[in-house]
Amino acid sequence: MIRLLGQVLAALLIGAGAAPAQENAAARAARTWRQGHERAILDEYVALLRLPNVSSDRANIQRNADAIAEMLRRRGVETRLLTADGANPIVFGEIRTAGATRTIGFYAHYDGQPLDPREWKSPPFEPTFRNPQGQDVGLPASGAPIDPEWRVYARSAGDDKAPIMAILAALDGLKAAGVALKANVKFAFEGEEEAGSANLFKILSANRSAAQADVWLMCDGPLHQSRRPLVYFGSRDGVRLDLTVYGARNELHSGHYGNWAPNPALSLARLLVSMKGADDRVLVEGFYDGIEPLSDIERRAITDAPLVDRALMEELWLGGVDGAPATLTELVTRPSLNIRGMSSSRVGAQASNVIPSTATASIDIRLVKGMDPAKTQDRVIAHIRKQGYYVVETPPTPEIRRAQANVVWVDRARVGRGAVRTAMDLPISREVLRTVQSVRGPVIALPNMGGNLPLADVEQALGTRTIVVPIANHDNNQHSFDENLRLQNLWDGIEVMAALLAM
Amino acid sequence: MIRLLGQVLAALLIGAGAAPAQENAAARAARTWRQGHERAILDEYVALLRLPNVSSDRANIQRNADAIAEMLRRRGVETRLLTADGANPIVFGEIRTAGATRTIGFYAHYDGQPLDPREWKSPPFEPTFRNPQGQDVGLPASGAPIDPEWRVYARSAGDDKAPIMAILAALDGLKAAGVALKANVKFAFEGEEEAGSANLFKILSANRSAAQADVWLMCDGPLHQSRRPLVYFGSRDGVRLDLTVYGARNELHSGHYGNWAPNPALSLARLLVSMKGADDRVLVEGFYDGIEPLSDIERRAITDAPLVDRALMEELWLGGVDGAPATLTELVTRPSLNIRGMSSSRVGAQASNVIPSTATASIDIRLVKGMDPAKTQDRVIAHIRKQGYYVVETPPTPEIRRAQANVVWVDRARVGRGAVRTAMDLPISREVLRTVQSVRGPVIALPNMGGNLPLADVEQALGTRTIVVPIANHDNNQHSFDENLRLQNLWDGIEVMAALLAM
Repeated sequence: MIRLLGQVLAALLIGAGAAPAQENAAARAARTWRQGHERAILDEYVALLRLPNVSSDRANIQRNADAIAEMLRRRGVETRLLTADGANPIVFGEIRTAGATRTIGFYAHYDGQPLDPREWKSPPFEPTFRNPQGQDVGLPASGAPIDPEWRVYARSAGDDKAPIMAILAALDGLKAAGVALKANVKFAFEGEEEAGSANLFKILSANRSAAQADVWLMCDGPLHQSRRPLVYFGSRDGVRLDLTVYGARNELHSGHYGNWAPNPALSLARLLVSMKGADDRVLVEGFYDGIEPLSDIERRAITDAPLVDRALMEELWLGGVDGAPATLTELVTRPSLNIRGMSSSRVGAQASNVIPSTATASIDIRLVKGMDPAKTQDRVIAHIRKQGYYVVETPPTPEIRRAQANVVWVDRARVGRGAVRTAMDLPISREVLRTVQSVRGPVIALPNMGGNLPLADVEQALGTRTIVVPIANHDNNQHSFDENLRLQNLWDGIEVMAALLAM
Repeated sequence: MIRLLGQVLAALLIGAGAAPAQENAAARAARTWRQGHERAILDEYVALLRLPNVSSDRANIQRNADAIAEMLRRRGVETRLLTADGANPIVFGEIRTAGATRTIGFYAHYDGQPLDPREWKSPPFEPTFRNPQGQDVGLPASGAPIDPEWRVYARSAGDDKAPIMAILAALDGLKAAGVALKANVKFAFEGEEEAGSANLFKILSANRSAAQADVWLMCDGPLHQSRRPLVYFGSRDGVRLDLTVYGARNELHSGHYGNWAPNPALSLARLLVSMKGADDRVLVEGFYDGIEPLSDIERRAITDAPLVDRALMEELWLGGVDGAPATLTELVTRPSLNIRGMSSSRVGAQASNVIPSTATASIDIRLVKGMDPAKTQDRVIAHIRKQGYYVVETPPTPEIRRAQANVVWVDRARVGRGAVRTAMDLPISREVLRTVQSVRGPVIALPNMGGNLPLADVEQALGTRTIVVPIANHDNNQHSFDENLRLQNLWDGIEVMAALLAM
């Protein structure tokens, strides 16, 4: 870990500034509509955010799917739910345009990450507006101006109901202004992206001709930390591994057994430390094998991206970061291995004088193009064995625990279909960049986002291309508590979606 | 960590067997009383266990103190509460015996460890009887036989309300049989032992003449794993340190920031691993300095103790233990450093794809005679600094987190008054051993217990000796969930306490 000690640069985020004159006609139509209907748009959004949407909550997931289908139908979009056994439905909509020569797909997802409501400042499914000072505020009456720096706090406010709302408001704006579409348009709003898109490939494969498109625009993820518009041409892929290390069958009194009974928390710490060098390079043998190097265009794109590292460190209270001298933008084009969470017995007021019985860590690995997801998990498991652990892939029996000194249960919690990077110089790549630029000015183009999206699922099921168009603010706290959306990001997103719909 | 791979010896616990003929008259009187009053004794015990007794729960602690004072007074013991500002009361009782030439004190504590009721099979303050097969059972009517292998499950069933109940029932038995006491007897039942006995020294110092005794018998802790009777002549002392390591101010999306934002869980793991060598020796500089070596008698006592390591490994599902070839009995005479608990973000179904914002571990250190508690904490803190961490002793401000790459908040959660070992060849030491032996047959004598008791507080406040006489089963799950007391241990404990009261 590199330590950037000493004074921190007083770097400031490049603000979004005043809205530029809108040269894109579709975006202009969307802006006019939005300016006249801000309260109505937010009321509709709040109603959508009120629906609990954790992927595993089947009953509420269905309520979300039904609500979104109804929102599409109200706008004249032919809509149905694509389903499969054990899957959360995909809300699928279609607008057929007379004389169209191509089809553009818009993907987003309506499910959200698991959460612990006790960590949230306001209940995650009671959308709450707050001003930049962090005070709760009420929306003014319809027609009155609303501060675009206000944010709405709720699970999925940023990830990923925002693009759904932006698309729906954009359709309203285009219709009101009589802007005609040129392409056929399709919508696929997934209901289990946060659960690993377990059925996306299967459902799209089963509906291959219906879901066919020349490109699928994957509307997810955050904008650049500089708040400038951003298009990603790929994403990392994620795999997870949950590791549980075992001590005695029960927690033991740490006085009566300390020095004798093995401590699984220490054993887990040793295992985790063995996976990364002091330079934060992953020490799992073969981890970096097969990676497809960045092209010249991709490397240039990284160099061209604005430097935000110092400002971000200030914003995030970080006195040091990993991986320097490489920048954040470059580092997310490399694979990563991260501890998502760690737990053993209790800490704080609930702690007691025990030797814990088990210790668990959840790790996620972000893969880049060329890495095989299952093989990467295999390599981590081989690494664990090499450290002297006896690996089981189901919880160990008492017999195994008695016979083996160091037992670890490895749960291959998620395997994806690999990372994707779409070439940045394809005609469609250039056209999407040009379109977003015509709405919001100079666009940052990056080879891949650091997170993972089910790009490979879509590409492999449909034999198509994917390009990622995010709209949420970078500090939307997605995947954590106090998730939020900055209202200006929704307003900008409506204009971007209008321009892409009319492309 | 030594790995004892391969087959495990089919060693068996030496059972308590049938009760031997009772040669000690006081113990015989107690047995006769108990055999006629088992149901009544358990009813009284259940009522005591029903009172929630977590040390920090002041209102309920007071209810416990009042209830125990009333139980003593019902038996004619002159009783009052010793208090101090901010302290939980000590229930103090006294029996003056005409012509007595010495005074024997009996210490126990009525408070219990913090707990999480969700971990318990039955609610911790609804005492539940279970048979050895783990089935809930109801007590038979008064007079009917009760299986002595049944256990009662409740917080403090073993640690440490059991000796209080045993003493009270012993007093009943002695009175019923007309057995006269020879010594003055005092009782001190503490209400914050599990919170580190923060006020014991102060209260006893303020009541020095009232609490004076030739010896204080510290009735706490578990019996030997062989179930043979056991007397300890000291205890380790415990200090605690809670460590919190910081990453970014919020949890961050592990895709968008993974490889760049430091992971506090990994940083904490590195810190913990730095504290112990592969041979489990503590690597903190000076940690072992000043330790008072064991005497020949103490070393012989360890050699004479029955070997239970293999049987315990089988019982506890352990395939390997630390510290071999030294035995458990020997290892607890050495200092230890243990991770009590560890937490960072979430694991399991609540986990999400984040880089955690903080990671916390609670460590406890068991000191042996000759080690200074505060100096030991200082040495650990010096070790942490040497690993490159910036140490603060209050939660760090944003400014500190921005200025320093590796910030750790060290909370000196507990400092004790040092470990104690009473010489095993003093006349009083031999007399206590002989008395317990006259009740229960051959006694195991050990230099110190592995846990810590406030022996130093009592000795330093009163200028007296302490000897530890436990009665609870070794597998009572003290300090953890599903704490329990085996009924035969209560029955045996009543006889031991009767013999010691009449000593």
